[in-house]
Amino acid sequence: MRSQKPTHRGPRDERGVVAARILSVARASFAAYGYAGTSLRSVGRDADVDPGLVIYYFKDKRGLLDAALVPPPGWTEAIATAAAAPMRLRGAALVRTMIDAWEAPASEEFLRSTILTAAHEPIARQRLATNFAVHILDAVSSRLDDDERLVRASLAASQIVGLAMMRYVWKVGALAAMPSDQAIALVAPAVQRYLNGKLTGLDQ
Amino acid sequence: MRSQKPTHRGPRDERGVVAARILSVARASFAAYGYAGTSLRSVGRDADVDPGLVIYYFKDKRGLLDAALVPPPGWTEAIATAAAAPMRLRGAALVRTMIDAWEAPASEEFLRSTILTAAHEPIARQRLATNFAVHILDAVSSRLDDDERLVRASLAASQIVGLAMMRYVWKVGALAAMPSDQAIALVAPAVQRYLNGKLTGLDQ
Repeated sequence: MRSQKPTHRGPRDERGVVAARILSVARASFAAYGYAGTSLRSVGRDADVDPGLVIYYFKDKRGLLDAALVPPPGWTEAIATAAAAPMRLRGAALVRTMIDAWEAPASEEFLRSTILTAAHEPIARQRLATNFAVHILDAVSSRLDDDERLVRASLAASQIVGLAMMRYVWKVGALAAMPSDQAIALVAPAVQRYLNGKLTGLDQ
Repeated sequence: MRSQKPTHRGPRDERGVVAARILSVARASFAAYGYAGTSLRSVGRDADVDPGLVIYYFKDKRGLLDAALVPPPGWTEAIATAAAAPMRLRGAALVRTMIDAWEAPASEEFLRSTILTAAHEPIARQRLATNFAVHILDAVSSRLDDDERLVRASLAASQIVGLAMMRYVWKVGALAAMPSDQAIALVAPAVQRYLNGKLTGLDQ
């Protein structure tokens, strides 16, 4: 249902507020309908602004996608901090950072949009690799050889992503229903093992 | 680009062939554009058939979604068989079954469509629970109490789903690049531990 109040016309609005609302709508649309299923017109309509204003702020659909894939303030620092925790605590630190991010609206919106858009759009996959995978890789001991580090980072990412899918994207099963501290306690040891534990299959 | 040959008109076609093509297109569309972004018209167009034929076979969009979420032949049996493997081999059996399913086109299409559509549609989440989660639950020892079984099943599912996201949906990182036997060897022990290993955090 569309609002009946006049749509916002543009630059006289506070840039931050209107641009943030457009971005929020765009993230939800990329997640739900993909890049192909999102238009500047539909984003403008759902954000209750003129499509021209979407263009004014984001230039074109590609510009809108680029902006949607930029992490919210603090995300990069938070995950880098977790990746630099003492080794024996890193699994828990990474899992806690991800859970905290999913439970804060601004980063939840970014994470959901990025992981769902990445199912279809190479540019989103690329950003996922830059904004997430490199930090997980940093969490793996730099004393291991590069091949092993990449395998361990990929395994740790798989467990963290699987938790996010169950608990936040699908919201199904026991992992979705339990308190976050319990989810961290249950999942962190698996992530920790991937970071620095004994693994079979590394040398195949 | 649309084909130039006449579109298929209906019942005189072999039902299996045309219905399967419509279903394949519908699964891809639900995965890419969601339920809301899919129409009988767009599916008909992409399947190169009259929209009336989509209605003839599937009644309406809800009927099309229902059909898209029905597992391909053999899927239910395969995962039930894995869940009934000797306990110490079940982790590997489940991971192998999922990897085999992702590497066969018919089941890959079903899995991709189900897990992406489930991000937005409760009906798809419900089917995911029925077609996947119950079998993972069956893999957990029936001698444990129900709460613990549900937590273990959810943990095992999270690792299997995370592997699927990395290797098949996003196709990123070392897990996407390695041979399937190596992926199984690396991931199965984590799944096995969730099924019957020692866990911290169960009693929180």
